[in-house]
Amino acid sequence: MAHISLPEGLPGIIGPLEAYPETGIPLSHFTEALLRGPSSLTPAERELIATHVSNRNECRFCTQSHAAAARHLWEDGSVVDEVLEGGEAASLSEKMKALLQIAGKVQTGGRGVTDEEVRRARAAGADDRAIHDTVLVAAAFCMFNRYVDGLATLEPDPSAYPAMGERLAKAGYARG
Amino acid sequence: MAHISLPEGLPGIIGPLEAYPETGIPLSHFTEALLRGPSSLTPAERELIATHVSNRNECRFCTQSHAAAARHLWEDGSVVDEVLEGGEAASLSEKMKALLQIAGKVQTGGRGVTDEEVRRARAAGADDRAIHDTVLVAAAFCMFNRYVDGLATLEPDPSAYPAMGERLAKAGYARG
Repeated sequence: MAHISLPEGLPGIIGPLEAYPETGIPLSHFTEALLRGPSSLTPAERELIATHVSNRNECRFCTQSHAAAARHLWEDGSVVDEVLEGGEAASLSEKMKALLQIAGKVQTGGRGVTDEEVRRARAAGADDRAIHDTVLVAAAFCMFNRYVDGLATLEPDPSAYPAMGERLAKAGYARG
Repeated sequence: MAHISLPEGLPGIIGPLEAYPETGIPLSHFTEALLRGPSSLTPAERELIATHVSNRNECRFCTQSHAAAARHLWEDGSVVDEVLEGGEAASLSEKMKALLQIAGKVQTGGRGVTDEEVRRARAAGADDRAIHDTVLVAAAFCMFNRYVDGLATLEPDPSAYPAMGERLAKAGYARG
């Protein structure tokens, strides 16, 4: 049971976003800009970073929902499974490998990101925008994961995730 | 030096919020709602939670700027120093002691918040809204701290914080 009263039947972050719209509406606008707005990273790349960070934070709802979204957005969905297994997915670009490394450092605490890691990402083609967006996606999922789990929100039946992923892939996050 | 090019002379989170307005503007709306909008916690209480979490994340910019804001908002500013020293400030209410305990659990990862900790907060007068807002403030500062430090943003001269805190206490976070 969740730590506070939330609308029935709404899993994960959806319950508190609906119940507390003063923060839920700007958070949804932020998420839409973060994961679907202008960037030098594709929505598929940003969903993969979100999945990686959520997985490291052991947030099942965010991991499964964003993995499902990423599977819809990547041509080869097996890359998502490789990232979930924790390694550097063999089929990923050097740029994405370097950015996932930075995202992992942000997950454990932002002070750990090194100049060397940023140089590696730039050498593989990441620009300022890509580095910025990687850091902010990783940081934001350290918030979303804690919001979901700190309130002990409802976990849906695992069979719900594919449809949720398809909706996030097609319609994004804007609301309110 | 910051990991990416940012506007000169803007310390901490201010640089990336200005340079990346697509995310910066909704983030500022979110922060204003989170720390100054409707809540059963006062702005002073919310700034203290923000300070506590930022301090635990060792984010100097966020710790010092929000501590300075909290000092303006609390009648007795010494409570801020007690919280920065890491203990349960003797002069705090039982409710705030219980909420800071929850915030500390969220900082290390949301799954750690226990039913017992939530009961303790409720017994001391915290309602659903107070518990929700504590979890979300703590989660959000796990994002802001990583955004600031993951980009290695500029740290201002320590003498700048009192005026920054006064501005945040009086004018809040809305922009754009």
